[in-house]
Amino acid sequence: MMAEYTLYCFAQSGNSYKAALMLSLCGADWEPRFVDYFNGETRTPAYRGDVNVMGEVPVLVHGGMQLSQSGVILDYLSERLGRFGWDNDAERREVLRWLLFDNHKFTSYTATYRFLRTFTDQGEGDAAKFFQARMKGAFGVAEAHLGTRAYVACGRPTIADLSLCGYMFFEDEFGIDWAEYPAIGAWLERLKAMPGWAHPYDMMPGHPLPRS
Amino acid sequence: MMAEYTLYCFAQSGNSYKAALMLSLCGADWEPRFVDYFNGETRTPAYRGDVNVMGEVPVLVHGGMQLSQSGVILDYLSERLGRFGWDNDAERREVLRWLLFDNHKFTSYTATYRFLRTFTDQGEGDAAKFFQARMKGAFGVAEAHLGTRAYVACGRPTIADLSLCGYMFFEDEFGIDWAEYPAIGAWLERLKAMPGWAHPYDMMPGHPLPRS
Repeated sequence: MMAEYTLYCFAQSGNSYKAALMLSLCGADWEPRFVDYFNGETRTPAYRGDVNVMGEVPVLVHGGMQLSQSGVILDYLSERLGRFGWDNDAERREVLRWLLFDNHKFTSYTATYRFLRTFTDQGEGDAAKFFQARMKGAFGVAEAHLGTRAYVACGRPTIADLSLCGYMFFEDEFGIDWAEYPAIGAWLERLKAMPGWAHPYDMMPGHPLPRS
Repeated sequence: MMAEYTLYCFAQSGNSYKAALMLSLCGADWEPRFVDYFNGETRTPAYRGDVNVMGEVPVLVHGGMQLSQSGVILDYLSERLGRFGWDNDAERREVLRWLLFDNHKFTSYTATYRFLRTFTDQGEGDAAKFFQARMKGAFGVAEAHLGTRAYVACGRPTIADLSLCGYMFFEDEFGIDWAEYPAIGAWLERLKAMPGWAHPYDMMPGHPLPRS
């Protein structure tokens, strides 16, 4: 029996984790489809042609549809599963505002810095330092925002939280102690306390990486 | 008389241009509010406190609301002005997919590379080279996508086009000749032919920069 939802993903992908965490928190019937990113699968013509022209994970397969972009998948699942969504257009735009900030800066800078630091030998280079500084700038924005509220938008957990937290549980891999950002740290503890939460390395296949 | 819409912006900001172009193409009654980014206005406590916690342009003021994130502003304006939007949820998600790709990669890499190359002395550094390579990767994705269609989503011009084109008319500032990406080049010509189109430097205040 195939599961209802299939998620193209791999353990090190925080963008995949956003969708996996949503499925898990909602108790959905889902299964991962491992994508061998580190051996180049997302760069193959087959992947770009048949799975995702953008050459990225995650991709969600459901009911004959293939959806890409974590924010689109979260939007779709919140409607299908009736959780973590918005109640009106003003809330929808507030959630979208933080999804966009996450994709543009918060996740983008963190994921790239963590990649350079953890998965390459360029962790001390100028590019890594550039991303590290921008990551800290984005953390400063989130720290200010979360200093006066428990969740990112709408006064309750939404897909905006699930998007922004995508890489946050890899903090040792980007060298941050949340004591530096206590509001972010407290928010992450609230998310970890939700039934169905697990670390990305315990939720998706491919960890640890084979020794090279 | 104040205009109906006020847009916090400056000429060099392609993210602001996305909103300005939307307003112009729709013939809306709008005026720019110049933000002195190059002298640090977006980093001031006043800007972050009263205008945008994210410390960014654009911000749209309309009817007592302040909206930030270009994608949210485009979403709002498409509903208010009845143009360049979607007809159903599937179209909405297809537009959102490209807005997210734009914010995460297409605009993000291009804007940062162009900034380092044009507005700093780090245009030849490792960080600039890193962004340049990623920019070209994102252009490759768009070239493949636009090779078989006239517009980014829904078979007609939408806010996805207006988002993705935000920095594309600064091509001399990021060193690209569209002959290398003919499908992108042809798409940009289609956008330039739309009534109300103008170059960002002719649409928003602050160009040229004062000589330092």
